[in-house]
Amino acid sequence: MSLPQPIRGIIPPLVTPLSGRDTLDVAGLERLIEHLITGGVHGLFILGTTGEAPSLSYRLRRELIERTCKLVKDRVPVLVGITDTAFVESVNLAQYSAEQGVSAVVTAPPYYFPAAPPELQQYIQDLVAEMPLPMFLYNMPGLTKVSFDIELVRRALDMPGICGVKDSSCDMIYFHRLIEVARQRPEWSILVGPEELTAEAVLLGGHGGINGGANLHPSLYVKMYDAAAAQDLPLTRQLHAQVMSLAGSIYTVGRHKSAIIKGIKCGLSLLGICDDQMAEPFQRFNAPEREMIRERLCTLGLIE
Amino acid sequence: MSLPQPIRGIIPPLVTPLSGRDTLDVAGLERLIEHLITGGVHGLFILGTTGEAPSLSYRLRRELIERTCKLVKDRVPVLVGITDTAFVESVNLAQYSAEQGVSAVVTAPPYYFPAAPPELQQYIQDLVAEMPLPMFLYNMPGLTKVSFDIELVRRALDMPGICGVKDSSCDMIYFHRLIEVARQRPEWSILVGPEELTAEAVLLGGHGGINGGANLHPSLYVKMYDAAAAQDLPLTRQLHAQVMSLAGSIYTVGRHKSAIIKGIKCGLSLLGICDDQMAEPFQRFNAPEREMIRERLCTLGLIE
Amino acid sequence: MSLPQPIRGIIPPLVTPLSGRDTLDVAGLERLIEHLITGGVHGLFILGTTGEAPSLSYRLRRELIERTCKLVKDRVPVLVGITDTAFVESVNLAQYSAEQGVSAVVTAPPYYFPAAPPELQQYIQDLVAEMPLPMFLYNMPGLTKVSFDIELVRRALDMPGICGVKDSSCDMIYFHRLIEVARQRPEWSILVGPEELTAEAVLLGGHGGINGGANLHPSLYVKMYDAAAAQDLPLTRQLHAQVMSLAGSIYTVGRHKSAIIKGIKCGLSLLGICDDQMAEPFQRFNAPEREMIRERLCTLGLIE
Amino acid sequence: MSLPQPIRGIIPPLVTPLSGRDTLDVAGLERLIEHLITGGVHGLFILGTTGEAPSLSYRLRRELIERTCKLVKDRVPVLVGITDTAFVESVNLAQYSAEQGVSAVVTAPPYYFPAAPPELQQYIQDLVAEMPLPMFLYNMPGLTKVSFDIELVRRALDMPGICGVKDSSCDMIYFHRLIEVARQRPEWSILVGPEELTAEAVLLGGHGGINGGANLHPSLYVKMYDAAAAQDLPLTRQLHAQVMSLAGSIYTVGRHKSAIIKGIKCGLSLLGICDDQMAEPFQRFNAPEREMIRERLCTLGLIE
Repeated sequence: MSLPQPIRGIIPPLVTPLSGRDTLDVAGLERLIEHLITGGVHGLFILGTTGEAPSLSYRLRRELIERTCKLVKDRVPVLVGITDTAFVESVNLAQYSAEQGVSAVVTAPPYYFPAAPPELQQYIQDLVAEMPLPMFLYNMPGLTKVSFDIELVRRALDMPGICGVKDSSCDMIYFHRLIEVARQRPEWSILVGPEELTAEAVLLGGHGGINGGANLHPSLYVKMYDAAAAQDLPLTRQLHAQVMSLAGSIYTVGRHKSAIIKGIKCGLSLLGICDDQMAEPFQRFNAPEREMIRERLCTLGLIE
Repeated sequence: MSLPQPIRGIIPPLVTPLSGRDTLDVAGLERLIEHLITGGVHGLFILGTTGEAPSLSYRLRRELIERTCKLVKDRVPVLVGITDTAFVESVNLAQYSAEQGVSAVVTAPPYYFPAAPPELQQYIQDLVAEMPLPMFLYNMPGLTKVSFDIELVRRALDMPGICGVKDSSCDMIYFHRLIEVARQRPEWSILVGPEELTAEAVLLGGHGGINGGANLHPSLYVKMYDAAAAQDLPLTRQLHAQVMSLAGSIYTVGRHKSAIIKGIKCGLSLLGICDDQMAEPFQRFNAPEREMIRERLCTLGLIE
Repeated sequence: MSLPQPIRGIIPPLVTPLSGRDTLDVAGLERLIEHLITGGVHGLFILGTTGEAPSLSYRLRRELIERTCKLVKDRVPVLVGITDTAFVESVNLAQYSAEQGVSAVVTAPPYYFPAAPPELQQYIQDLVAEMPLPMFLYNMPGLTKVSFDIELVRRALDMPGICGVKDSSCDMIYFHRLIEVARQRPEWSILVGPEELTAEAVLLGGHGGINGGANLHPSLYVKMYDAAAAQDLPLTRQLHAQVMSLAGSIYTVGRHKSAIIKGIKCGLSLLGICDDQMAEPFQRFNAPEREMIRERLCTLGLIE
Repeated sequence: MSLPQPIRGIIPPLVTPLSGRDTLDVAGLERLIEHLITGGVHGLFILGTTGEAPSLSYRLRRELIERTCKLVKDRVPVLVGITDTAFVESVNLAQYSAEQGVSAVVTAPPYYFPAAPPELQQYIQDLVAEMPLPMFLYNMPGLTKVSFDIELVRRALDMPGICGVKDSSCDMIYFHRLIEVARQRPEWSILVGPEELTAEAVLLGGHGGINGGANLHPSLYVKMYDAAAAQDLPLTRQLHAQVMSLAGSIYTVGRHKSAIIKGIKCGLSLLGICDDQMAEPFQRFNAPEREMIRERLCTLGLIE
């Protein structure tokens, strides 16, 4: 399926349903995809941070790409994260993605060695030249240590094959600069990662959100996007408050940074959608933590 | 070859000689290995940070392991870095290493998701249980974002299969705490990464250094280790000053953090040992930078 | 003048006009105050970060408080920064402020020793007990190293004397949490520091901005606030784009973090309002930098 | 008393004995000074980080300077920290220090605004020009956010009035570079802050330590310095292990960064030397924490 340019809306970053170390929860994946498409999402993004991509074996990543494409059957665009510390592995994954019918790939900077701005620019230039699909830049300095600075993004405007930026920096000043720069490329999408920021991102010119919480409650995020895109401010504020509640309750059970992904997977397990097995170095919530998630899902009205 | 426990001395972290993207410089690798063994080093460590391991494809990492073992022919122990964000890939690489005759493996924390201390402890416990070879912990918070805290190291004393720590934190207070903790395990080695710190590490109870600059001038580092191990303080100070000069001149040509590895590879190329091709996201020094390295090698007396 | 609770709108953080080391530019201060009040601002904040407060002697800080109050003559509320590393000096400055007719004081965490959350909570509790005026919490982790975490703010709801938060963290997720928490206290103001974020802050429930750029062009910021408060989204977007242009051009001349304050002071000097003398450790822009600011002010239409 | 150049040995950074908010524990100060001079220390450093200087009112800082000088009566050199965010306040404190008979002043970078390297260099140049006494640079990036980079130190070699560097960065590579640079100025002292690093600092060419733990047990630190200065490696190792034990037990009772200063003050209180009152934002240890310090002092043999 070819990528709408610009792609707009809610494109959830799917968790990767697992049923054991290096084993995909295939039935869970199918239920998750149906849950999301039924919820009205505008695309699916697999193998991102929420998908624990760097923690998965290459074998499993390929299996996930293949199965996702077969299950989605071109109903919505599929985006695939190819971020890697090894250039060649990124290229291999992109080629495999293209063969399976993926719509676009997404890459963050290599995350072991922090590349300096000119090194990162050269890297992106070299990488995009090898890409068989449109490529998003994925800004995630909290985990990759380096940002795609605005100057690099400005130069990327002239690199054929780049189709936008996903920004998970939590820095809305940077996000507004992205929108300013990307005005020259109306086919680019500027998408925001953290769901707490999607309302303002869209109100002020962004194209949508790649929001983890949409795994749990896709229709809420789609409605918030629709309200913001329609410039309905009172409704946007109301739905934004609901998104803040969901994030504030589901992501704060664990004490570590892993609490967000664990919370989403645990919630999906309680919703009967997929297993909450995590890839190492993370482990699923224990029983008391799971009980807290259950209570909070009840309060949110997501389970009875 | 079985690992001496504790292993002591200088174990250089080899650069990975490349002749193109994803192509090993096989002749260069052979010359590098002979250069180091002739220089008197006590072991070889491949696929570490200096070896640009995370930037290499898995295919090339395996080729490097295989060829290194064949070339070394058990003259010194070979250590292999298996650090990975994916548990399964670390295990696969360790198994391959064991099959090829490697002496020990070395692992840093997974470097995309920062594992909290209890998560990291569980990870190490699970990983070491799968290891066919002794395993070193490799503390490298500057690149992996998290440390093996002292409490974790204390618990690792009771995990069979762990044989020591390589510390590249540049934090000598931490290093002294490692030595204090490891007194209970006389077979453990506590090794230091940065060469500027090897003298004091050995003077105060450490077992040696995994020093990048030893690629260029192995005998200098071996002599400094020997002097410190023999408690010859005047000679240690003199050789330490030489090591400071080498590091201060060869690692400061580039402006980015990549300057150290680029400087070593460029120097090896000028010494006629191997190609200076870098793995992406880094590129080799340009002509003026290379000329500066040449001049500095002359000043250091390493070339004429 | 008593503080409107909640105070709403644009409250510029005044630069401190200086004519030499430890010498106030008194005429410049008068012109600056008239420029801002004429521009329609809703209050004035002196001795904040933009005011270089920590770089000023205590003598000069008192002179500034006294003169500002005399010049303002209760036309708008005056807020005074009392942030200090020494508890007693903060109290002294607050008492002096009260004597001079100030409306409220503003305090960031002590900025040498990073207080842990319970230590910081105790500190705020003890400090507010000594305050003769309402007190804002000023969140500025980039310079103070620690944040007022949401839990502390929740507890501050029950500390009489606290009247709101100024947030300069650039973290809009945190800002939305502040608004959520402060709903229980309708007399609190939640104000945002960076001007690039004022539009969304007000659109989604905040009370206004303490924006450095308002020193230069107060009416633009007041109009943007008014548009956002009136939920006029098209006009808000247009004025937000103008604010982005001003910030993007005036704050990017110098290469250091001081570029923002230097840019504002240099611009005010070119507008004929006050001297651009900086307090150490900063120095005013040199001639080529000043020329760049002049050109950019022309482009922005602020000078001819 | 004029400063020995270079000054060598152990110069403890005194805690500031307090008996209430803004009240000096005068009797405690006298006992502390006698305890240290009896212990053989080579100088006294007041108003440093261990002295909680930034948390003290200016009035109290002056009282401390005056009383210390009167109590010391030129038996050892007295050094005074004048670090401040306000240039004028640093100058005022230095002038007061000179009047009271202090031997040298010590300054870290201004710690609110992070000065860029050229800004910091200009600052130091301007400051030293106003100094009536020799001035040490105090490198403390963990609390001031910026370092005196080696290039700045190299330029400081030519600024009359500078007499050395105290380095509390915990970065021994940096420390060795300081020694390398300062070889051109045999009258400079290069002193290390953290006591865990004094042994190696002195073994490899440094002049001594400004070590907090020397407040508690001055003779231990003096013996360790003497052993290292005499190149007696076995004795140095043994005393270093004792220092590691003291630091490892006394500094790890509290959970926050304040644990070090709180531990020292609590220990001094248990030794009957001075009150353990802290300056805000810190509070003294509670009863169970105090009991832990008591037990550890027993284990260390410092109390019965």
